[in-house]
Amino acid sequence: MALTDKPVTTFLDELASDAPAPGGGSVAALSGALGAALVSMVCNLTVGKKKYADVQDDIKALLEQSEALRKEFVELLEDDVRVFTEVSKAMKMPRDTEEQKAARAEAMDKALKAATGVPMRVAENCVKVMDLCRPAAEKGNVNAVSDAGVAVLMAEAGLRSAALNVLINLAWIKDKEFAAEQRAKLDSLLEGKPALKDEIYDLVVEKL
Amino acid sequence: MALTDKPVTTFLDELASDAPAPGGGSVAALSGALGAALVSMVCNLTVGKKKYADVQDDIKALLEQSEALRKEFVELLEDDVRVFTEVSKAMKMPRDTEEQKAARAEAMDKALKAATGVPMRVAENCVKVMDLCRPAAEKGNVNAVSDAGVAVLMAEAGLRSAALNVLINLAWIKDKEFAAEQRAKLDSLLEGKPALKDEIYDLVVEKL
Repeated sequence: MALTDKPVTTFLDELASDAPAPGGGSVAALSGALGAALVSMVCNLTVGKKKYADVQDDIKALLEQSEALRKEFVELLEDDVRVFTEVSKAMKMPRDTEEQKAARAEAMDKALKAATGVPMRVAENCVKVMDLCRPAAEKGNVNAVSDAGVAVLMAEAGLRSAALNVLINLAWIKDKEFAAEQRAKLDSLLEGKPALKDEIYDLVVEKL
Repeated sequence: MALTDKPVTTFLDELASDAPAPGGGSVAALSGALGAALVSMVCNLTVGKKKYADVQDDIKALLEQSEALRKEFVELLEDDVRVFTEVSKAMKMPRDTEEQKAARAEAMDKALKAATGVPMRVAENCVKVMDLCRPAAEKGNVNAVSDAGVAVLMAEAGLRSAALNVLINLAWIKDKEFAAEQRAKLDSLLEGKPALKDEIYDLVVEKL
């Protein structure tokens, strides 16, 4: 059964347990999904409202983007568990002979690269959600402005959570060129985002 | 059916919809629950491990607290929907006569005060989770240190999300003395927390 088909309480139980997955990587994806869903909520509370007639096209375009991102986050949440399982499998490969050691090292790097890709994609998508939050807060139904604020908080927490999961994989990867590339990519995704979050948060508080 | 008994995807669908609840208030509680569950995960991956023999009592004490908080967050998530419904009911009361207007105003303030109490409690509990994250990161299984980092990110995002939900209720409350009191309480909960989060995040990154 897919993790996201389970009840919220079961998800929390499995998260809290000593099973290594789901873990922080899944939470990063879920946090992004919650942010995207809240942008969609603000849009859905604005669509078709006379008071917001001027912004209907903008809001519909926002909604299309937030819903696509939400869907992708749910897939990434499942992917995170899958790639983590592959790393665990590689880790358990035998290492008695030099040949086995080399095969294991190669399998580990391959699995770790895949395991880096998922939180990196989560991070990229969290940045995209953050970019939807400002227009949602500025143009969306003012009665739901706090929801746009919660959306940016969840998207930024998802971004930084994903970053930790990229970094923990990179720490184990032997291909140092790949690791340096990924770290640079991550840094550029993170740059300025705490400040952007605070800016949108302050904008929301002003409109409350 | 309780909201938290529904599948994660259904929760997200209902969040994204134009139904006013669940909304940002429920997400604040869920974010706290995710943080608490991740502290529990770190503890559960540390309990009974020889390498961590020296800290077993501390970790068990942490786990007891994180599990109690997780349980309370799930209740608060359900409470948030309930108190929101009461505000909506009061809002729909008739206001044709002076008597009706007075009755409605009184019912509104009562419902809004209850609706303030839930996110305030979420905020208080998120601060408690944040306080568990540092010992979890310092003493817990180092292989799960990124999960302690995600925990503090979710707890702080939960705190600030709860704050927005307190503020949106206070903006509508006529009892200005109550509003001022609550705002002061909230300010003291928020004080220094972004910095505390960054401190714990940096500690985690160092240990990766």
